Amino acid sequence: MKILGLDSSGLVAGAAVVEDGVLLAEYSTNYRKTHSQTLLPMLEQLQRMIELDLDTLDAIAVASGPGSFTGLRIGSATAKGLGFALDKPLVEVPTLEGLAWNLWGASGLVCPMMDARREQVYTGVYRFVPRGEGFSLEAVLPQTPMEVEELVERLNGFAQAVQFLGDGVPVYGQLIREKLKAPFRFAPAHMNRQRAASVAALGELYFAAGKAVDASSHRPEYLRKSQAEREAGLAGEA
Amino acid sequence: MKILGLDSSGLVAGAAVVEDGVLLAEYSTNYRKTHSQTLLPMLEQLQRMIELDLDTLDAIAVASGPGSFTGLRIGSATAKGLGFALDKPLVEVPTLEGLAWNLWGASGLVCPMMDARREQVYTGVYRFVPRGEGFSLEAVLPQTPMEVEELVERLNGFAQAVQFLGDGVPVYGQLIREKLKAPFRFAPAHMNRQRAASVAALGELYFAAGKAVDASSHRPEYLRKSQAEREAGLAGEA
Repeated sequence: MKILGLDSSGLVAGAAVVEDGVLLAEYSTNYRKTHSQTLLPMLEQLQRMIELDLDTLDAIAVASGPGSFTGLRIGSATAKGLGFALDKPLVEVPTLEGLAWNLWGASGLVCPMMDARREQVYTGVYRFVPRGEGFSLEAVLPQTPMEVEELVERLNGFAQAVQFLGDGVPVYGQLIREKLKAPFRFAPAHMNRQRAASVAALGELYFAAGKAVDASSHRPEYLRKSQAEREAGLAGEA
Repeated sequence: MKILGLDSSGLVAGAAVVEDGVLLAEYSTNYRKTHSQTLLPMLEQLQRMIELDLDTLDAIAVASGPGSFTGLRIGSATAKGLGFALDKPLVEVPTLEGLAWNLWGASGLVCPMMDARREQVYTGVYRFVPRGEGFSLEAVLPQTPMEVEELVERLNGFAQAVQFLGDGVPVYGQLIREKLKAPFRFAPAHMNRQRAASVAALGELYFAAGKAVDASSHRPEYLRKSQAEREAGLAGEA
């Protein structure tokens, strides 16, 4: 089974191809260029480097949100365009699950946190449960927007060691140091941000489990209204 | 601190840049092209994509062996050439330590294994020990060539859960299933092969700890003689 993974939900833009449990290629950048300038060129270079015939893909996995509104739209639009043109299904990988999957096999709790501004994060709390010859990802707290203070209180309630990752860590690391009572660690550079390879690898499992959608029906999951929508008073926050 | 990581010790060719605990870019391929055709072109594309000024690097970390003889020579020659031209130090990251670092934070034992033919693997056994706000890598068995049967016996002696990774897994997975008495898991696609990002991230720690060498004095660590040398009867195996 061959899966293309795309993630542009945060500052990272990445593309990766996984085939039957092996990573064939990965290209990712975390840089100030906009994802519209990077994602497709990177995919194109990667495709040429491994002589990838896009028709041989079984599905396209995409980090489906939450994340930056613009980033999610670029990722989803790219995935939808490819899926529509190639007649391939899409696999929606919730952004926080993809992030947690970076730490496959970690002991204790895994807590990805993405900075959502105004003292909030998009977060979730996960643990790895042995299953067969691997681990499955169990959501102790499924992905949600949350006040950072509340998150720390919830984690104090769990009273287990926590491995943190995500772009919320540099923003709220000091608060964690001051208020979290459980042991904690911060994930290192090679696994502390979004990875298209994780999206592809987890997407391969989800696709095998039948979790796919048509390109036309895919929508990113913003988890809350955009600032423009909030200011227009269209609705309260989810 | 900004570190370039290179790994071409196995089938994967990869380049990555880490700065102060964040991955700026990573490009890796696992494909039948030879590393001499891929490594430098990938680095060049990556450099252009993130507008990287190579003069701003603090050091060049390279997977220093063991691995494929040709692959190691290409990786080392590239690192030496860059280090010499840019007047930057090199950081030697033992290949098995770089592989183990992929599974940062994993519970139990981590056992990378690279197929070395003739029922042998290059392997090591590691565990992650909490240190400060992270984990340090502790070698229970430092990297070594070993008969697979002997490795499994040693692991049975440790009687702890083992997470396996590396290109030895598809070759010797069945033997592990049959003979290992401890619980075991096989790492998934996004972390089961060499990663230049792990080499860069671990290299950043090693460099901060003062472990650097001059470009001119770096030599890859083959761990055993090449087949040509063995056949010429030059020496016994290390």
